[in-house]
Amino acid sequence: MKKYIKITLLITLSLSLTTCSLIPTKVIVSEMDPGFCMNCHQQVTPGLFQSWVESKHAKNGVHCMTCHIDHEAATQQKSMVFPEKCGGCHKKQLVEFQMSRHSIGFDRMRIQGEYLAIPQEIRASFCERCHSIQKRCNSCHTSHKFSLKEARDPDACGSCHLGPDHPHKEMYETSLHGTIYKITQNPDRAPRCVTCHMPDGTHNSSFGIASGPAGTRSEVVDLKEIPISKEEVERRRNEMIGICTKCHSRRFAQEQLENADQVKGEGFTLMERGKEPIRDMEKEGLLYPSIAERMPHPTEGRTLVLADPQLYVGTSHIERLFFTMFKFHSIRVWKSGYHFSPSYTHGHGWTEMQLDLIDIKEEAEKLREIFKEKK
Amino acid sequence: MKKYIKITLLITLSLSLTTCSLIPTKVIVSEMDPGFCMNCHQQVTPGLFQSWVESKHAKNGVHCMTCHIDHEAATQQKSMVFPEKCGGCHKKQLVEFQMSRHSIGFDRMRIQGEYLAIPQEIRASFCERCHSIQKRCNSCHTSHKFSLKEARDPDACGSCHLGPDHPHKEMYETSLHGTIYKITQNPDRAPRCVTCHMPDGTHNSSFGIASGPAGTRSEVVDLKEIPISKEEVERRRNEMIGICTKCHSRRFAQEQLENADQVKGEGFTLMERGKEPIRDMEKEGLLYPSIAERMPHPTEGRTLVLADPQLYVGTSHIERLFFTMFKFHSIRVWKSGYHFSPSYTHGHGWTEMQLDLIDIKEEAEKLREIFKEKK
Amino acid sequence: MKKYIKITLLITLSLSLTTCSLIPTKVIVSEMDPGFCMNCHQQVTPGLFQSWVESKHAKNGVHCMTCHIDHEAATQQKSMVFPEKCGGCHKKQLVEFQMSRHSIGFDRMRIQGEYLAIPQEIRASFCERCHSIQKRCNSCHTSHKFSLKEARDPDACGSCHLGPDHPHKEMYETSLHGTIYKITQNPDRAPRCVTCHMPDGTHNSSFGIASGPAGTRSEVVDLKEIPISKEEVERRRNEMIGICTKCHSRRFAQEQLENADQVKGEGFTLMERGKEPIRDMEKEGLLYPSIAERMPHPTEGRTLVLADPQLYVGTSHIERLFFTMFKFHSIRVWKSGYHFSPSYTHGHGWTEMQLDLIDIKEEAEKLREIFKEKK
Repeated sequence: MKKYIKITLLITLSLSLTTCSLIPTKVIVSEMDPGFCMNCHQQVTPGLFQSWVESKHAKNGVHCMTCHIDHEAATQQKSMVFPEKCGGCHKKQLVEFQMSRHSIGFDRMRIQGEYLAIPQEIRASFCERCHSIQKRCNSCHTSHKFSLKEARDPDACGSCHLGPDHPHKEMYETSLHGTIYKITQNPDRAPRCVTCHMPDGTHNSSFGIASGPAGTRSEVVDLKEIPISKEEVERRRNEMIGICTKCHSRRFAQEQLENADQVKGEGFTLMERGKEPIRDMEKEGLLYPSIAERMPHPTEGRTLVLADPQLYVGTSHIERLFFTMFKFHSIRVWKSGYHFSPSYTHGHGWTEMQLDLIDIKEEAEKLREIFKEKK
Repeated sequence: MKKYIKITLLITLSLSLTTCSLIPTKVIVSEMDPGFCMNCHQQVTPGLFQSWVESKHAKNGVHCMTCHIDHEAATQQKSMVFPEKCGGCHKKQLVEFQMSRHSIGFDRMRIQGEYLAIPQEIRASFCERCHSIQKRCNSCHTSHKFSLKEARDPDACGSCHLGPDHPHKEMYETSLHGTIYKITQNPDRAPRCVTCHMPDGTHNSSFGIASGPAGTRSEVVDLKEIPISKEEVERRRNEMIGICTKCHSRRFAQEQLENADQVKGEGFTLMERGKEPIRDMEKEGLLYPSIAERMPHPTEGRTLVLADPQLYVGTSHIERLFFTMFKFHSIRVWKSGYHFSPSYTHGHGWTEMQLDLIDIKEEAEKLREIFKEKK
Repeated sequence: MKKYIKITLLITLSLSLTTCSLIPTKVIVSEMDPGFCMNCHQQVTPGLFQSWVESKHAKNGVHCMTCHIDHEAATQQKSMVFPEKCGGCHKKQLVEFQMSRHSIGFDRMRIQGEYLAIPQEIRASFCERCHSIQKRCNSCHTSHKFSLKEARDPDACGSCHLGPDHPHKEMYETSLHGTIYKITQNPDRAPRCVTCHMPDGTHNSSFGIASGPAGTRSEVVDLKEIPISKEEVERRRNEMIGICTKCHSRRFAQEQLENADQVKGEGFTLMERGKEPIRDMEKEGLLYPSIAERMPHPTEGRTLVLADPQLYVGTSHIERLFFTMFKFHSIRVWKSGYHFSPSYTHGHGWTEMQLDLIDIKEEAEKLREIFKEKK
């Protein structure tokens, strides 16, 4: 904390002599001298100030007001800087970003049943912290240094792409790709996330993804949720193989992806087998609580929902067994297949799915016995 | 292993010429020349010796006998060095340490039901390895180098603060704070544990913790387990916000902590809902084994215990569902709220709690059906 | 990606002037000039080429054909290089490797029931990716740089030794050994896997393992599955203690291993208690599906299998509870005992075993009630 104030770095900026009371003064400052903000902020938020000092922005004269526009407004409420503002200078990146699923992350979230079923006051700490990527370049380009080193690190991607329902971070880290990158920290030695998904620095992070969006569905759709043609899927896979062949033979790369296709197919077959006993239970009136007795699904209404957009709140035990099977375990099986993590595709995925299936099948048989008199 | 013996570093120490048989010789050595120990130990435990050689202790003439006192005693049994000994030189640190919960870790453990229910012979490998922090500065200041770099690293804290029932390490690592620190290894760029919990090097690691001790309870208590006043809690939160504002605006910091308060409240509400069906089961005589049939709780006796100090041994299935809900999942919800890990507070926490609640409610209904004839 | 082509490093190799069509030409090349391959491969697989350029192999004139022998054959099918080929130069390492369990990893896998129960087309992505270590030195010595730094890193070992059924990586990382190594990256400061299991660079990675193979069994066997004598087990433990005493006193090292012995004993006792209710269920005809109704075990036939080689496919719920208890949780208890991870031995291990036992015992009682009319 001792080196925060490196005023000597502020070469191109003439600091104003405004006295600083440590309480923001309300003045119309839209066109003011940049030193107005900094004079106080180097004292009240020295870490933020120092990060900016070390940024390329500082070196190129991009200061507080360039992005936040109006000091008065910023003192009243959160002064967010939207991608469109960043795109004023970073045009190519904005256009590419708008082609990626990142650019619809917040809007897509807002119509999800799972989101709608969460108490409003805690959505900010849960869903919105990641899905706000649609509205914030600083999801990846961390404030206020905006360091490329930080944005390109697999852990930057992994700060959202992790956890039980999309463990991309975990599957990468447990693959040989992730292992060698972790040891060497050398992107010429092993790929990191951006090597394959943002090649040549494209901000269309949906590049080459030929097997469905980040969610749990298997079909590939475009930003308007329209399924993509077989030819386009084929074209994208070839794009991806173009990345693999930097280090592997084409034959090997194709073989690996075809192996993953097989894994995906087997995983989806297993998942379908998990649905059958639950549909039977509904027909036989053995779900507890019944569809009629429970809160209706926020988007689907009073109906049995298995797999997306199934809820994890207020369902029966047998449905909850399937929720875990599809949302956590199935996704590990097939996505880890494409990310080459035997531990996740087999141990944390396939094995768990088989255990789920045992549980679901026997549970159905038990429900028949336990609640048969009630029928 | 080749560079172990750097005798040239032993500038200030005159080595004795005692011959070394590699079997410790019993001699009264309390006031002896430090070379007595080292002459052998550089051969029999070269790693330990080399670590000490590289320590500040070595450079400042602090040698084996300064801390271990008596070579004869040390050859007979484990020669522990207690905090009071370290405090002889490091006075400020000892006083601060004694204000922290670390200083009561062993004593608190010894009266916990969970500890008492574990076979005595395995307690050393389980609980005591971490809880011995009360008696060992080298829990964090790893022997025999006592390197500040090692002690300040988040992983040093994380060697105890991790795992299913207090995943502080995991929640920090999956927050943006932990992510940026991991990438940059720069404590000026992102906080590590000690930034917020041991600011300015204080060894009172309970600094600023305004939401309960490391356990599963929500109220804030002092070292004597007496609840802390609302005013003191408020004062501590303000202390903590003083840390946040190094990098964030006060408004933003307050908003984030208030979000976490909401998350905590929602989590505790959910947990209470999990208790109800189990209390009903007890009243209806449907717990298996019943409270009367099982081993009494080591500290609470023959009574239903839900949440702290609930045991995980020998209870009924429905109680065990609640154990997982409160001990593993509930704590992730609220503590990860304050550590800003959406993956832990939502995915590994809230979602699991909702699944637990589904299971507990249906289990109660089933128990009624299954065991109703037995009543 | 920009620095791939560092032709200046290719000191000793005269590149042929063969023109490169980017499509491999079929020519008999067994004794050809090494430039034949490289002239194309520096363009079609620049990452692979660059890795080799930076290898010791390149510096010592070991080129494509030295290992892959025949370019024509290599263009037709995967051109694997087996350990025997590497042993041509690295004799000592091959002999040591053949003494280790690594050298039987593939053969042992192929006769396992779990392997045989997995659909053939997905075995490559699941089991074979790790078990192929028997056939590939580049499991650890990553192609085509074969860097010692990479091979010796704990993460190299951890790319296979991880996950629910053998979390060696996770237990090491959560021990103080792993913590200090992660912070310092200094193998003189804290041991990594190879320090204890491959001392002095031996490729017999079964060195000093005195408590059973990597699987779930407790007895120690040799490569032909013959139990090892008590004397030999004792000798191996002494070998291991010889490593510990580099940094710890002999008394301390012995005490720690004896603690782990206790933990192991308690864990196996607990596991045996989990088997009893299931054997009862079989006798009482309450397993669903019954042994007669289900697919026979690939190696054991129509019989109840508890613990190795128990399957996780198509069993009853109560057997699946035991599967998780023995395969995931039991192994964490005792192996983490020897790896000094309180979080894994207690939190992720012992606690889970106790919860499993609660579930198994109550499940047996419920099965009696639920299916008693069916009998």
